[in-house]
Amino acid sequence: MPAKFTESRALFQRASAVIPGGIYGHASPAATVPGAFPYFAQSAKGCRYTDVDGNTYIDYMCGYGPILLGYQHAEVNEAARIAQEAGDCFNHPTEYSVQLAEELVKRIDGADWAVFGKNGSDMTSWAIRVAREHSGRKRIAKATHAYHGIDPWCVPGFGGVILEDRSQIDHFYWNDLRSLEKLMQRHGEELAAIIVTPFHHPAFEDSILPDPDFVEAVNQFCVSHDILLIVDDVRCGFRLHEAGSHKLYGFTPDLMCYSKALGNGYPISACVGREALKISASKTFLTGSFWNASSAMAAALKTLEIATRDQVIEQLRVQGQRLVNGMLQIGRDAGIELQASGPPAMPYIRVANDPSFHQQQALCASAVQNGLYLHPHHNWFLCAAHTADVIDESLERFSEAVSSLR
Amino acid sequence: MPAKFTESRALFQRASAVIPGGIYGHASPAATVPGAFPYFAQSAKGCRYTDVDGNTYIDYMCGYGPILLGYQHAEVNEAARIAQEAGDCFNHPTEYSVQLAEELVKRIDGADWAVFGKNGSDMTSWAIRVAREHSGRKRIAKATHAYHGIDPWCVPGFGGVILEDRSQIDHFYWNDLRSLEKLMQRHGEELAAIIVTPFHHPAFEDSILPDPDFVEAVNQFCVSHDILLIVDDVRCGFRLHEAGSHKLYGFTPDLMCYSKALGNGYPISACVGREALKISASKTFLTGSFWNASSAMAAALKTLEIATRDQVIEQLRVQGQRLVNGMLQIGRDAGIELQASGPPAMPYIRVANDPSFHQQQALCASAVQNGLYLHPHHNWFLCAAHTADVIDESLERFSEAVSSLR
Repeated sequence: MPAKFTESRALFQRASAVIPGGIYGHASPAATVPGAFPYFAQSAKGCRYTDVDGNTYIDYMCGYGPILLGYQHAEVNEAARIAQEAGDCFNHPTEYSVQLAEELVKRIDGADWAVFGKNGSDMTSWAIRVAREHSGRKRIAKATHAYHGIDPWCVPGFGGVILEDRSQIDHFYWNDLRSLEKLMQRHGEELAAIIVTPFHHPAFEDSILPDPDFVEAVNQFCVSHDILLIVDDVRCGFRLHEAGSHKLYGFTPDLMCYSKALGNGYPISACVGREALKISASKTFLTGSFWNASSAMAAALKTLEIATRDQVIEQLRVQGQRLVNGMLQIGRDAGIELQASGPPAMPYIRVANDPSFHQQQALCASAVQNGLYLHPHHNWFLCAAHTADVIDESLERFSEAVSSLR
Repeated sequence: MPAKFTESRALFQRASAVIPGGIYGHASPAATVPGAFPYFAQSAKGCRYTDVDGNTYIDYMCGYGPILLGYQHAEVNEAARIAQEAGDCFNHPTEYSVQLAEELVKRIDGADWAVFGKNGSDMTSWAIRVAREHSGRKRIAKATHAYHGIDPWCVPGFGGVILEDRSQIDHFYWNDLRSLEKLMQRHGEELAAIIVTPFHHPAFEDSILPDPDFVEAVNQFCVSHDILLIVDDVRCGFRLHEAGSHKLYGFTPDLMCYSKALGNGYPISACVGREALKISASKTFLTGSFWNASSAMAAALKTLEIATRDQVIEQLRVQGQRLVNGMLQIGRDAGIELQASGPPAMPYIRVANDPSFHQQQALCASAVQNGLYLHPHHNWFLCAAHTADVIDESLERFSEAVSSLR
């Protein structure tokens, strides 16, 4: 029976009366294809997601990243519950804060200390302040189209943004040594920091892994011009490498930002950094009403423990590659050229030579109709619940999606 | 037996190795009196809080505001648990988002729509962007020393802040009509918004309620100069008035920000606004990895329901007044002049004529030794678990604190 979105639409009508745009941000219907995707969630378990109409999907978005071990992971929930029952949000932090900082310092390459927030933006914006405090310089360089959060210096679009918000922000093109060199010539001595994602993952574009030459140049320029390197590992963190995604690609950052997968869905973010920055970090004020709450920290500790114990990163790589290979083959068999980009754990597959995205949107809408939640414009995410059997089931569904498309 | 802080100190040592400053933000030991207060929390229930050394206190900080109904409120926890067990953090929002927006619109005077975040700063910073988007103007006016969060336009201190962050921020003095008039003459036509807290509650100062003349002038200037009024109700919201704290004092805002008490400790914030701003709001991008999570929304819905059912605002007012009256009397009997400021639900009591705060710090340290958690430099918070009996017990402890001080 084809998926219908009657309840999604009814709820969206209700939402539109009391919420600007009905749904905002990354979950907005405009981010996928209005009418062809669900708008509201009902429940999820493992890698399976049910919308308010009762349609179920094998889900490859994982809440846009937070779900690393599977939705409703019993061990993580239990760890969070134990912390929660002691009180969660207090006047002071708990031992969990210290344990989690110790764990990140132990685990992440180049991390000597950690602080915590509730959202990726909390940390990326604080990291650039730490870099400014430390260097006494103002300018920050980022890659064109790179997403680093919702604060005015980097938010997508220009709604409510004023010129002053971005007057000290410079851009270079990803993997483009010439643009980086030109930036260095022009502003190298004024840059407090360069901020990069581990690989380039803009929406509505293929993902692009970093060229080794580019990584080398970024590292070198930072050293030669006394610029701090910030790796925004919010989206990729804990999916690509145990010691931080920068380790996989060879970046040598001074500050690294995490969120999403860290707590398997519990709200937490972290910034870690090198010893040399610790005093500057302590001078750069940060706080939040719920930032010391223990349940999300307990969830993060348990998530990290399980990720190591179950070798989740290796599993995501293997099963992600199985998914990618299978889908490309299905495309070839059907005479549809598909293009895969990004690392296997966070793949993005789209119809090649489809600049309008119309064929891609039709393909993903057909996948949704066949119980497979694939995003047409944004990289996907694997989680530990995507076992080999689930991948095979996904490929069957994808096959049906391709067939019913033609 | 006097309170000892052996475990707090040991844990702080451990923390200092891996966290800049050991503890950052409002919970930093430097915010109270290092050595005389606990540093780390163990558990809490109702209005009683236990630190890592096993010292217990009747707590008048309520997690710096979030705890409105008491720590570990069974009904709120149960509502959150039910939402949590369905999956919490999804690809899409849930019906809880819509219900909570509907509830805030119904409840808050002047609210026609709502959006949600995870921290007060998420909302105050977004609100000024909405005002800029709507008005096409850049400048924002705030009261000197008013706390509106951690973003660079308003964060306390200058760590990592650059001139450009605040070049469009103007200041006036609270309750000072002359300073407001001068600001209007100078920048009235360039102001996108004035942002105020319902009453003035800076740290290290007495709280100051708004003069009716001041409220009237703020409202009038906003109308006559086409300036939007933002009320930052993050700290006061849901403690002073059912329909929003602006209603108690007569402000007529266009945008209102909430967080802290909204979810009784669960991480959530909200911005509500008038219909005329809805389109501008929909153009001002906001999103967060965990912002659609259902458990905090379910907790907020239940917290609001109980606050109304149990007439919590009236209770906080009555019991807060009982606490204030009792403490002032105890001071008078002991020959110590105490000064109370702020509304009874969020009182701040300090030793009068004590500009160095040394007597105040000694008094609050003595209260802590007698099982009463009072902050020396920051307004206090009542919650629904502060019953008449608890107030009386608190006054006994305060009496002992005053006696042992002399």
